[in-house]
Amino acid sequence: MKPGHRYGLHRVLEPQGTMPQPAWKIDNSMELYDNEILIDVQTLNIDSASFVQIREAEGGDPLKVGEHMQNIVRERGKHHNPVTGSGGMLIGTVRSIGERLQGQIDLQAGDRIATLVSLSLTPLTIEKIVKMDVKTGQVDIQGQAILFESGLYAKLSDDLPDRVSLAVLDVCGAPAQTAKLVKAGDTVVILGAGGKSGSMVLYQARKSAGPTGKIIAVEYGEAGCETLRKLGWADEVLNLDCTKPVEVLEAVERATGGRFADLTVNCVNIPGTEMASILATRDEGTVYFFSMATSFTAAALGAEGVGKDVNMIIGNGYTKGHADLSLQLVRESAQLRELFETKYGN
Amino acid sequence: MKPGHRYGLHRVLEPQGTMPQPAWKIDNSMELYDNEILIDVQTLNIDSASFVQIREAEGGDPLKVGEHMQNIVRERGKHHNPVTGSGGMLIGTVRSIGERLQGQIDLQAGDRIATLVSLSLTPLTIEKIVKMDVKTGQVDIQGQAILFESGLYAKLSDDLPDRVSLAVLDVCGAPAQTAKLVKAGDTVVILGAGGKSGSMVLYQARKSAGPTGKIIAVEYGEAGCETLRKLGWADEVLNLDCTKPVEVLEAVERATGGRFADLTVNCVNIPGTEMASILATRDEGTVYFFSMATSFTAAALGAEGVGKDVNMIIGNGYTKGHADLSLQLVRESAQLRELFETKYGN
Repeated sequence: MKPGHRYGLHRVLEPQGTMPQPAWKIDNSMELYDNEILIDVQTLNIDSASFVQIREAEGGDPLKVGEHMQNIVRERGKHHNPVTGSGGMLIGTVRSIGERLQGQIDLQAGDRIATLVSLSLTPLTIEKIVKMDVKTGQVDIQGQAILFESGLYAKLSDDLPDRVSLAVLDVCGAPAQTAKLVKAGDTVVILGAGGKSGSMVLYQARKSAGPTGKIIAVEYGEAGCETLRKLGWADEVLNLDCTKPVEVLEAVERATGGRFADLTVNCVNIPGTEMASILATRDEGTVYFFSMATSFTAAALGAEGVGKDVNMIIGNGYTKGHADLSLQLVRESAQLRELFETKYGN
Repeated sequence: MKPGHRYGLHRVLEPQGTMPQPAWKIDNSMELYDNEILIDVQTLNIDSASFVQIREAEGGDPLKVGEHMQNIVRERGKHHNPVTGSGGMLIGTVRSIGERLQGQIDLQAGDRIATLVSLSLTPLTIEKIVKMDVKTGQVDIQGQAILFESGLYAKLSDDLPDRVSLAVLDVCGAPAQTAKLVKAGDTVVILGAGGKSGSMVLYQARKSAGPTGKIIAVEYGEAGCETLRKLGWADEVLNLDCTKPVEVLEAVERATGGRFADLTVNCVNIPGTEMASILATRDEGTVYFFSMATSFTAAALGAEGVGKDVNMIIGNGYTKGHADLSLQLVRESAQLRELFETKYGN
């Protein structure tokens, strides 16, 4: 077997010298390099923005949508939608493992896995479209894919339905980072606690902060707040619009007796909530931005503008063991599992 | 005296319920609240983007530029350019301090200070334009300004020219954060080490990492690299384009013998350098983004895409003691002072 580069640089065809993700075209020949994993693909989960664009371009015709997808892969060697720039993920079965990786990782031929790196950098072939769900963008295919040595994956198990596992894995970085950051007794404010990542962060924060900790869940809308109150994980649930920093400041000040949060986790999926996050946090506390709607400059200049010495962290979707930790949370909490089965596991 | 809010919320006129910075109009009456500082202004340093816009709108006529500035302040109560959204900073002398702040801070009436929060949130009056430099946007005025309790400032001293102090204070968050992050013996990579913030970060990193540390300075262009080599603060100076992550990856791999950086500080003032920062850093290392050109999503998705467990920090322009630390660096290093006097202190 030929030796491969950790980040898959050996697969880049054009332009030369780029990484596989920004590359226009990568090599999708299924001859394995010594540090790669070959996967028989079962299902592609096309990124929502990407799938909507393709579906609309093809007038919703399932056959044409399938051809469109095959053309993308033929042209680029990966399912990297040139219009939206986005990818998705896949589920499949490990067929073989490069000789330099064998024994170094916890995978064997026959294991079912979900890949946790984007399809926009994953070498892929589609021989045949087997089943097309034009509503959800879940597409069963016959085909193969390559995972680089640096590629992330999660082993799937039989005790959880795939659709629940996928919903959990989609946000698994957030609870794992929360587990690293929260100490027993901490005061934690979670903005957007009612959403998919927010609810997992809330559960993990309660677990990590323990009975002496104080967990404040912030959600906008009474219905969402009522759901959170019934779950019982937060000490207080506040109904607040996080784009209004003064309201968040005053409510968190009251709820914490003026101490503010040791850690604020932002899981709000709309822009303009950086200042609320900063103001909710105590001096020398930490703000963890998991929301992809975060503006770097709004956060940096916002903290300086109010003279706040806070540690601001860019949410990294990956940290070691993130997939296992998150799947374990859903296994151990019947409430969390029910939430994901009814709300996100469609 | 009336009691004021820490963040100056009591000065917001419209729209109600916003912070002073995003507010359209704030109260610039010079009657002091009990936690405010009243300043006799000497010089306004209008933000470069803002001043260029005003100068061009007025055809470069100094009188008209002055009138334009006075109109902004009359309308909004602050020098918050409605076109560019930006402000600037000011130099002046403390006239009086609210009774609740007296003795709580290291200021007295008569002290000369520079404000380190934006003019876009600072209550200001301009009675008269005294001297207008249409080249630099430094405008001497007769007028007054208010600093909120949360407002940041630096005391100016006679041993440094104002223009050098201002250039240093403009980037003082970067070396101060570097001092907090770097430990003796660390390997530190500085991207954009030849710029204003980069050169201060480089000096501080050398100081904090000590003789057992390894400091790698990255700059694009041979002239800038030669200047850095002459300064002698870095163990290695690499001439690299940081928008090319593969080149940076390979060069840092060679320079560190495959260990990569414990800390990478990004001071590059162009977009597209997030991936180079991530790849230069070792597993579980830290990337500190000080560049305002940083894209939040490029950093977050970039790290996940290559499966890199790195701690990514949003550069906070403020940390305690940042101004004093930075001015001290320029006092203690004749080389650093000369660099700032010749290159930035105009």
